[in-house]
Amino acid sequence: MLGRYLDNVRKFSPLIHNITNYVTVNDVANALLACGASPIMADEPDDAVEITAICNGLNINIGTLNSRTIESMFKSGRIASELGRALLLDPVGAGASSLRTNTALDLLKQIKFDVIRGNASEIKTLAMGSGTTHGVDADKADSVNDDNLAFMIDFVKDFAKSSGCIIALTGAIDLVSDSSRCFVIRNGKPEMGRITGTGCQLSGIMTAFVAANHDHKLEACAACVCMMGLAGEIAFTRLQDGEGNSTYRNKIIDALYNMDAKTLNEGAKYEVR
Amino acid sequence: MLGRYLDNVRKFSPLIHNITNYVTVNDVANALLACGASPIMADEPDDAVEITAICNGLNINIGTLNSRTIESMFKSGRIASELGRALLLDPVGAGASSLRTNTALDLLKQIKFDVIRGNASEIKTLAMGSGTTHGVDADKADSVNDDNLAFMIDFVKDFAKSSGCIIALTGAIDLVSDSSRCFVIRNGKPEMGRITGTGCQLSGIMTAFVAANHDHKLEACAACVCMMGLAGEIAFTRLQDGEGNSTYRNKIIDALYNMDAKTLNEGAKYEVR
Amino acid sequence: MLGRYLDNVRKFSPLIHNITNYVTVNDVANALLACGASPIMADEPDDAVEITAICNGLNINIGTLNSRTIESMFKSGRIASELGRALLLDPVGAGASSLRTNTALDLLKQIKFDVIRGNASEIKTLAMGSGTTHGVDADKADSVNDDNLAFMIDFVKDFAKSSGCIIALTGAIDLVSDSSRCFVIRNGKPEMGRITGTGCQLSGIMTAFVAANHDHKLEACAACVCMMGLAGEIAFTRLQDGEGNSTYRNKIIDALYNMDAKTLNEGAKYEVR
Repeated sequence: MLGRYLDNVRKFSPLIHNITNYVTVNDVANALLACGASPIMADEPDDAVEITAICNGLNINIGTLNSRTIESMFKSGRIASELGRALLLDPVGAGASSLRTNTALDLLKQIKFDVIRGNASEIKTLAMGSGTTHGVDADKADSVNDDNLAFMIDFVKDFAKSSGCIIALTGAIDLVSDSSRCFVIRNGKPEMGRITGTGCQLSGIMTAFVAANHDHKLEACAACVCMMGLAGEIAFTRLQDGEGNSTYRNKIIDALYNMDAKTLNEGAKYEVR
Repeated sequence: MLGRYLDNVRKFSPLIHNITNYVTVNDVANALLACGASPIMADEPDDAVEITAICNGLNINIGTLNSRTIESMFKSGRIASELGRALLLDPVGAGASSLRTNTALDLLKQIKFDVIRGNASEIKTLAMGSGTTHGVDADKADSVNDDNLAFMIDFVKDFAKSSGCIIALTGAIDLVSDSSRCFVIRNGKPEMGRITGTGCQLSGIMTAFVAANHDHKLEACAACVCMMGLAGEIAFTRLQDGEGNSTYRNKIIDALYNMDAKTLNEGAKYEVR
Repeated sequence: MLGRYLDNVRKFSPLIHNITNYVTVNDVANALLACGASPIMADEPDDAVEITAICNGLNINIGTLNSRTIESMFKSGRIASELGRALLLDPVGAGASSLRTNTALDLLKQIKFDVIRGNASEIKTLAMGSGTTHGVDADKADSVNDDNLAFMIDFVKDFAKSSGCIIALTGAIDLVSDSSRCFVIRNGKPEMGRITGTGCQLSGIMTAFVAANHDHKLEACAACVCMMGLAGEIAFTRLQDGEGNSTYRNKIIDALYNMDAKTLNEGAKYEVR
């Protein structure tokens, strides 16, 4: 049962360093706090390296990257890897520009990440060197559906094997896999795509889940994906007439805040393939 | 009727690149999503140029500008202009510092914008090389009211002619004009001024309205100003005892999310002069 | 009675320049607006200096500092000091990295601040050159409680004397002191620590309180701390089943927006030692 991995986050309260974009950074911080973890953000190279060393995990998100933050990503990533910290890459917009694609590919070459978390277009770009994209959103042509499910499961398993990372490809159907097993997760609501930053939040809290569950990284990542989707479902039932994406954003973080192991165990919708 | 221009945004779903300040960037992203558009943000020069090329519009907002983002504004603005993308300038704080004033004036000299969207002090600064200012808020001495309305309509028409841009001067009374016509709009609530970023949100979504309505740019800008003001009115009626500017912020974005053509047509308060 | 200091903020409406982190900047802006002040943000050195000169106060917050913003902090701090503007330092994460600790210490050496506002670990780091820390949150070992209260009061009075600043050390019990008096404040709720940025918001509005109450800086700082804590209490009573830290964040800013002198006078819980 996946709820125990949430319990460990709340018990261990990992400190998570986020080198992340300024669009969604506040939501990432509040989502981490909602799960019982502590956020910290630094992006000047010297500062980022030192902060990384005192943290339990590092979440590298390449949205709004710049030359200074890219240097911080490489230096902090190396330190985190040497120290055995939980280490996640969110390749926001890989495929949309060469700077983003190349930065993500170079990070993967030089640093050993525990997890890559992205949408279908971003993951395809990293796995195959190409992918269609609609800015920072996945292109419909790339999405996982019941028709291509078996193919996509093989694809993420193969990429997990070649990259040595857990792959968390999220969308209408989420796939979380190491090279041997793949969690196929059907939590969540399509309206979550009308809020900026649900993916960034997921990457932040997933880093905390890995940091708090070093011996069960794959299950922890799957638990985290189920939790985020379930929070979206719970928040959706709480929306009232006239409310929209801004209130939905708040209610999703509220649902993370109130989530417990029992609710997660009962609400998680997944199979292992 | 203005509602059709909203319908086009929802149908076409333009991808809008925003080089914008980090204070209100999250609200700009959620406001764009609320209207059915997609936001993306990049501000490293190489990245910004490539992202601009894949987008339908570019919103340049000079709040919290720095030397790196200024370079991105010029390079991206030129590309957007060459490619015929919707192109908007929000001269946040023009008049409050020489860097802001000069950057805005230089952008206008070198790049052909579709629209300039600002408050009265900012627009006066750009039109006349001077203007009083209260930081990033308009000075009361500059505001449009019923006493100076005829004068201000002539002023924006003249500036629209000399600049070759649509001018959207927003405040208690909003003026949206090309050189021949001026929409005088009376939607909105004064309490919107107690929320940071309603102007920035307006600039973001106005870029999407222009991108989705290339053949009717003036009407699309007017529709967008009516919509933002009407969202402020609808959200205000939904405020409960004890709620304040933070909840009002969320409810305005929610009202954008739920706006349809019929509501906009019925609620828009404007005359054309 | 402390309510008059809030009245002065609403009456004078000070313009406050914030060189602050991008994690919580939007909340700082909305909190200032909620109190009746006006926010502006700039961090390119030339721009920051000019903006500082037109403002009534400067709030320097070193979270997510970088080489460019550090230069802006020093240059703007000097100008603000020369011009007699309200000047506050929030040493976010001092003790967590050498860049943060050294930047804060250097700022204190070179610039005369009115107030230093931080958590117990940050204040101890600045006062004693060392302190434990848990990232940007205070370490439990440093916190003020009834057992160490007399000792901590002496400590903040001593540091106020040696630094020449008002010290606002905030946590479960808040201490606000110049060298002779210490306000011991017991407003607030522990759940405020599960929201990112309540400390940053407090620093922003405290700068406005000092700017609007130049002749009673200590009392104004104490009033501001009481107000923030009381807003947390009021917002907490307004939380409904299923709501969490994200909605709590909004309701705290809403409570600031609706606060009046009478409510503050009746709700402030403090003694002067």
